Amino acid sequence: MTDVADAERTRFSEVAALSPAGDGCFVADVHPEWTIGGKPNGGYLLAMLGAAATAVSPHAHVIAASAHYLHSPDPGPVWVTAEVLRAGRSASQVRARMSQEGTPCIETLVTTATLRPDGAPYWSAGLPAGDVAPFDACVRLVPVHPDGTLRVAIMDQVEIRLDPASAPMTRGEPTGRGELRGWLRLPNDEPFDTASLLYAVDSFPPATMDIEMAGWVPTLELTAYVRALPAPGPVRVLQRALLIDAQRVDETCFVWDSTGRLVAQCTQLAGIRLG
Amino acid sequence: MTDVADAERTRFSEVAALSPAGDGCFVADVHPEWTIGGKPNGGYLLAMLGAAATAVSPHAHVIAASAHYLHSPDPGPVWVTAEVLRAGRSASQVRARMSQEGTPCIETLVTTATLRPDGAPYWSAGLPAGDVAPFDACVRLVPVHPDGTLRVAIMDQVEIRLDPASAPMTRGEPTGRGELRGWLRLPNDEPFDTASLLYAVDSFPPATMDIEMAGWVPTLELTAYVRALPAPGPVRVLQRALLIDAQRVDETCFVWDSTGRLVAQCTQLAGIRLG
Repeated sequence: MTDVADAERTRFSEVAALSPAGDGCFVADVHPEWTIGGKPNGGYLLAMLGAAATAVSPHAHVIAASAHYLHSPDPGPVWVTAEVLRAGRSASQVRARMSQEGTPCIETLVTTATLRPDGAPYWSAGLPAGDVAPFDACVRLVPVHPDGTLRVAIMDQVEIRLDPASAPMTRGEPTGRGELRGWLRLPNDEPFDTASLLYAVDSFPPATMDIEMAGWVPTLELTAYVRALPAPGPVRVLQRALLIDAQRVDETCFVWDSTGRLVAQCTQLAGIRLG
Repeated sequence: MTDVADAERTRFSEVAALSPAGDGCFVADVHPEWTIGGKPNGGYLLAMLGAAATAVSPHAHVIAASAHYLHSPDPGPVWVTAEVLRAGRSASQVRARMSQEGTPCIETLVTTATLRPDGAPYWSAGLPAGDVAPFDACVRLVPVHPDGTLRVAIMDQVEIRLDPASAPMTRGEPTGRGELRGWLRLPNDEPFDTASLLYAVDSFPPATMDIEMAGWVPTLELTAYVRALPAPGPVRVLQRALLIDAQRVDETCFVWDSTGRLVAQCTQLAGIRLG
């Protein structure tokens, strides 16, 4: 359990806030507690880039964001720039980039559109089951990494609860299935929006931790799709590894809102040191 | 069956060839027969962008390519530009763009690295089964679209053979599973390389055709990962739809080489008109 009082938790909308600096440029401040081993979570940074993209776009929501990670910024000020590549009727495309002290950190391409609050999925039979044990029956992740090598400070901010079937990883006992299921709740139970869903798709520990205990799994590329406006409340997350080959792993992530609707998904390619 | 003689087929390496024009710029010629209803296949164009990215990169192979599709070019000359964003030791990042007569068509971000010819997957338990009936037991797709509305000229160039379980789609009788399995062979059985794998991941008909007969399914975003150097011979392909919501569908594609190794995969988000 964590000993961080609610008052010390930072709201997502605050730690991901952008200050406009004119001409598609923004300044943001990477929070030192939204980090893993001192490095910011990649989805948290992607949410900033998505917010910059929608700020310059004629459309309100990110529906597809592709990020290539060049260099991890340190906590502190970063510079975000966004440029509309094409403004269309139903969708627009934006380039957004993050840099720190002149070093390019993340390059993204973003497609924006406007998601309607109504509607329902037309067909969803291709999705994996979104089964997760009830929130209170799940095990909260704490900031101490199972291999003891680094502090996952962000776990004191957000609340990630693993389904009991996925919990052996927290004791350093992977099941070998390469799958983690659970819940994600933002600080103060802040409702998710399309910006924070870009964090949600990268919020879970690497599913490789359910295969074996490897060290850092740095993301090379991550593509997220936002499919619907999320209902308030925590989201259910399924994080899966598919293939480890040539010291790289791909993972998929599915995020369902509290009503059980699939609201976001992602695929990522990451480096991994094994064997 | 097709009536195009082997001699009339165009080799992939020819139709995807780039002519360097200096300074990271290339001219290419979109072939009128590598088209669906007169519009070029998106993976075929992505292969050109990938080739431009590796031409300017210190690394030989595309390992991750994210494409956002702005405007479909017509057959004929296109302009491709590539710019190294970061040249790293083990991986580099490149921006590559395609335009036609000044209109931006495709924007991509590409991560390159060097894939080794040896090695084997470390863990692959997260992948779907790659089962496909033997090549000769599969049904070849012909250029006539099941709904009769458009000519899929590219089917006279490449050979796509559907597993009998996926073949009802060709008679306009979708199974409702949203899944197509089969083989892809390039003209003249040209061996695949990491460039033509970027075509392979987008070569199959939309898996939505196994759900219901909808019209054009234009790709908004496609992200491909190349995982290993492919062995010679045709590849096995699995194309799946996951979710149709808000007039958009996401699909995943897995490509195995003739030895059964997963060599490429992709996810894409496309528009779809239904209901």
